Amino acid sequence: MSLTLADIEAAAERIRGHAVRTPLIEAHAASQATGGRVFVKAEVLQRTGSFKFRGAMSRMTLLDSGERKRGVVAYSSGNHAQAVACAARDLGTSAVIVMPADAPKLKIDNTKGYGAEVVLYDRFTQDRVAIGKRIAEERGLTLVPPFDDYRIIAGQGTAGLEIAQDAKAMGLTFDAVLVPCSGGGLTAGIASALAEVSPQTKVYGVEPEHFDDTARSLAAGERLANTGTAPSICDALMTEMPGELTFPIIQRLVAALSVTDDEARRAMAHAFYHLKLVAEPGGAAALAALLSNKLDTRGKTIAVILSGGNVDAETFKQALR
Amino acid sequence: MSLTLADIEAAAERIRGHAVRTPLIEAHAASQATGGRVFVKAEVLQRTGSFKFRGAMSRMTLLDSGERKRGVVAYSSGNHAQAVACAARDLGTSAVIVMPADAPKLKIDNTKGYGAEVVLYDRFTQDRVAIGKRIAEERGLTLVPPFDDYRIIAGQGTAGLEIAQDAKAMGLTFDAVLVPCSGGGLTAGIASALAEVSPQTKVYGVEPEHFDDTARSLAAGERLANTGTAPSICDALMTEMPGELTFPIIQRLVAALSVTDDEARRAMAHAFYHLKLVAEPGGAAALAALLSNKLDTRGKTIAVILSGGNVDAETFKQALR
Repeated sequence: MSLTLADIEAAAERIRGHAVRTPLIEAHAASQATGGRVFVKAEVLQRTGSFKFRGAMSRMTLLDSGERKRGVVAYSSGNHAQAVACAARDLGTSAVIVMPADAPKLKIDNTKGYGAEVVLYDRFTQDRVAIGKRIAEERGLTLVPPFDDYRIIAGQGTAGLEIAQDAKAMGLTFDAVLVPCSGGGLTAGIASALAEVSPQTKVYGVEPEHFDDTARSLAAGERLANTGTAPSICDALMTEMPGELTFPIIQRLVAALSVTDDEARRAMAHAFYHLKLVAEPGGAAALAALLSNKLDTRGKTIAVILSGGNVDAETFKQALR
Repeated sequence: MSLTLADIEAAAERIRGHAVRTPLIEAHAASQATGGRVFVKAEVLQRTGSFKFRGAMSRMTLLDSGERKRGVVAYSSGNHAQAVACAARDLGTSAVIVMPADAPKLKIDNTKGYGAEVVLYDRFTQDRVAIGKRIAEERGLTLVPPFDDYRIIAGQGTAGLEIAQDAKAMGLTFDAVLVPCSGGGLTAGIASALAEVSPQTKVYGVEPEHFDDTARSLAAGERLANTGTAPSICDALMTEMPGELTFPIIQRLVAALSVTDDEARRAMAHAFYHLKLVAEPGGAAALAALLSNKLDTRGKTIAVILSGGNVDAETFKQALR
């Protein structure tokens, strides 16, 4: 079993009317800085401020009536949390969200704001998957995983379909699409969509340094975990390792790049000054890779996913320094 | 002579391919806070970060070849400056921009960045109109005024056409549209468009306190100037008085509201947290009026123009406090 274009198109149908069809915005200053023609897919304008709403809604529209009645549980550093909480409210079901105690306060507050019950855990000593599974079993809830589920990956892939549709409407073909990469749901979803509808487009997953499990896994030919405990400013991209389902897709279709904390901050400032969009550090990772010339983009047509904008004021202020 | 729907539709044709057709974004948090259904027209995503590009391009596409060869001159506190400078670059002509010395540094830098020559003046002792006219005469340049020109007003009115088109596509009718108001080009343009294509929609112009010349002029039945020298955080809305051409339109079609500096700052913070959009103080004035309940919007369908996002980091940080 794998992910087909039909799966992604079906997900697009399911999330229509719930999710925002986000704009693909020409990024003139980034084009000038890199010598390419750059567009930004503004997933910060998605419901709940990140692409995660696509996958959550894609999965949760498939809950049967009994499952909806009992509710869902999810574990997440914050963006999937908000997405599942908001989708639950939209669909008239309830959500329990397991979040790390050191997640940005904004993300915890927003998740509660959508009406979810939040359970905190310690990122460094406790296993969120085990906690999520235990709550699911004890309370009869459906687990909505953050990325390793074809229904989630298909939902994230709808962003790739939209990019291809917009490219066609403008008479363009993208040479490359850069995607912030954590567990790989968005990266694998977009790569799966584009492999079918825009096979000339190369997809890059962008990770924070020290959390470059995808790059190391690609080099090793097998899934490797991140071992260090050095934090990254890109809280949304601090995953453990690539997914069982996402990695084979990424292995087939994606190359990896990485960015430093400072590069992510500079990309956030660029988005503020030139795009008028609020990006969180992890959400700006792909733009950071582009602006830091991790790739030769001269003369190329490039799309960059600005994948999330849920950032505390303090972190944002630091990026504007 | 006045402004017709045909004029606005012709302007829409002229600016197509240059200007961004900005998205109308459903603003869930603002809806929840006000009890209405709120949408935001994200003109911060317009070229040069404000709606002003519409009017500048609308006017400048009508330059004849001799005028294009000689170039244009404009006076502006910043957003019209950037718009004219960028439009000049797009159209292969040159621009001289007269700007107040105390305009935000970002706006001055951006204007220069688009290749324009910037001439600074003292807002409190010098007459920018006289300076602009003198430069136009001395150098044979075409003056592109900030608002009091039907070709400019028609360009700004294209934002109103787009709102009506999007409303129709969603099966909605807006009860009200709130517009940040300075000289009145955007307000008069949007009101003119909506009066024809969505006559049920009431248009409100929103001014900063102490610069409420439109409200006082409406009350007096004649154009009155702002007299105080108290500054406003809304640098883009510190006009002298309503325009000769804009005021009669506003008198016929628009009501006025006003907001304080703090209300504008809170709206900027709301846009940051909930919309992931960067708004400058004046650009957030209409959202501020909505969020400060200057209007009873319960049960109503409302569009708010977020008209500009060109804000210094320091001013933005203050708004996030």
